[in-house]
Amino acid sequence: MEDVLTRIRKFRDDRDWMQFHDPKNLAVSIAIEAVELLELFQWKDKEQVDRYVADHKDGISDEIADVAIYLFELADNLGIDLPRAIHAKLDKNAEKYPVEKARGVATKYTDL
Amino acid sequence: MEDVLTRIRKFRDDRDWMQFHDPKNLAVSIAIEAVELLELFQWKDKEQVDRYVADHKDGISDEIADVAIYLFELADNLGIDLPRAIHAKLDKNAEKYPVEKARGVATKYTDL
Amino acid sequence: MEDVLTRIRKFRDDRDWMQFHDPKNLAVSIAIEAVELLELFQWKDKEQVDRYVADHKDGISDEIADVAIYLFELADNLGIDLPRAIHAKLDKNAEKYPVEKARGVATKYTDL
Amino acid sequence: MEDVLTRIRKFRDDRDWMQFHDPKNLAVSIAIEAVELLELFQWKDKEQVDRYVADHKDGISDEIADVAIYLFELADNLGIDLPRAIHAKLDKNAEKYPVEKARGVATKYTDL
Repeated sequence: MEDVLTRIRKFRDDRDWMQFHDPKNLAVSIAIEAVELLELFQWKDKEQVDRYVADHKDGISDEIADVAIYLFELADNLGIDLPRAIHAKLDKNAEKYPVEKARGVATKYTDL
Repeated sequence: MEDVLTRIRKFRDDRDWMQFHDPKNLAVSIAIEAVELLELFQWKDKEQVDRYVADHKDGISDEIADVAIYLFELADNLGIDLPRAIHAKLDKNAEKYPVEKARGVATKYTDL
Repeated sequence: MEDVLTRIRKFRDDRDWMQFHDPKNLAVSIAIEAVELLELFQWKDKEQVDRYVADHKDGISDEIADVAIYLFELADNLGIDLPRAIHAKLDKNAEKYPVEKARGVATKYTDL
Repeated sequence: MEDVLTRIRKFRDDRDWMQFHDPKNLAVSIAIEAVELLELFQWKDKEQVDRYVADHKDGISDEIADVAIYLFELADNLGIDLPRAIHAKLDKNAEKYPVEKARGVATKYTDL
């Protein structure tokens, strides 16, 4: 992952884009890229999604990468270690959704 | 990163949540978490964002992690290696935004 | 609708909020409210959505209104007549999606 | 507004699209269109937004209309009268953000 971060930083700095990459603009861009990923599945039912996924791995991979690039950069700019942040959040989620209560519950966020 | 993926998979499977985690539902959830991250900066100008960031690192870290957890899981479920996907996308971006043209251009996506 | 616009303007001006309501901040807020509306249906399948809709009309109504309030204000601030804008856009959509080609096609935006 | 709703319904039914327009798919589409509107302002600072707004009224008008079309349809499908929903929500907002407390407060949603 350090390797990826080094390249993301260099890509931005070669273009002198840090001046635009404040946290709010990066968060806007993460949301935009996340919704472009969602757009791939717009209107599709489960079966159509499955077929689409089987045939368009590269396109989906690119959209996932677009979200990840800005997300990794935002974490990096704020001095946040992403793997550590994920572990810390999963600790909290484990308390919030204990296995015995959350098991198999679809509407997990609203009903627990 | 493998370590993080192992934990994300276990968290989901302990709760039997794979049945809900089809690609479209995961993409919806990535968008929801991305916008919750953006919400931290809603209405704030640059100076207010900077002050907020200085005082709320843990809260921001949690929101970034929420996006990352679903994003990593979606990539994992589709058999996409995320670091490799990022490198492949940065290759394409480098062609789309050549340094000499993109340097210091704010409205990079619309004007190039 | 004029009645609604008058009230939205007064609500904002009574609180001296116009200073925060530039187009970008309003667009951010429209996106945030849109995703809060989407969040009501997160993880739910069709049947669960139908049951939810039957039981939570007021909550859904509030989330739809939140999107509409910022959307109406943005149009108003930019001097855009919303019903006229909708008619103009539907004219374009009718050309883009001719009845004979679009009829019953689910993945209308990607396949046409 | 009744006039607009009649046209939205006819546009959809001429194409036999009601089968795809369940509440969750419509909410996904509202979020997608909201973020496309936001994308017009991506990376731009206030001055650039103002210049963009002055020169691209028609494009912005189209994106606002795209959000409105799906939002109006969702309300209509659920039997929600949108102007009435807006008035009801503004009643609640007025209680939540009393003038004397909310006046001129930028970070209104987090600090009140």
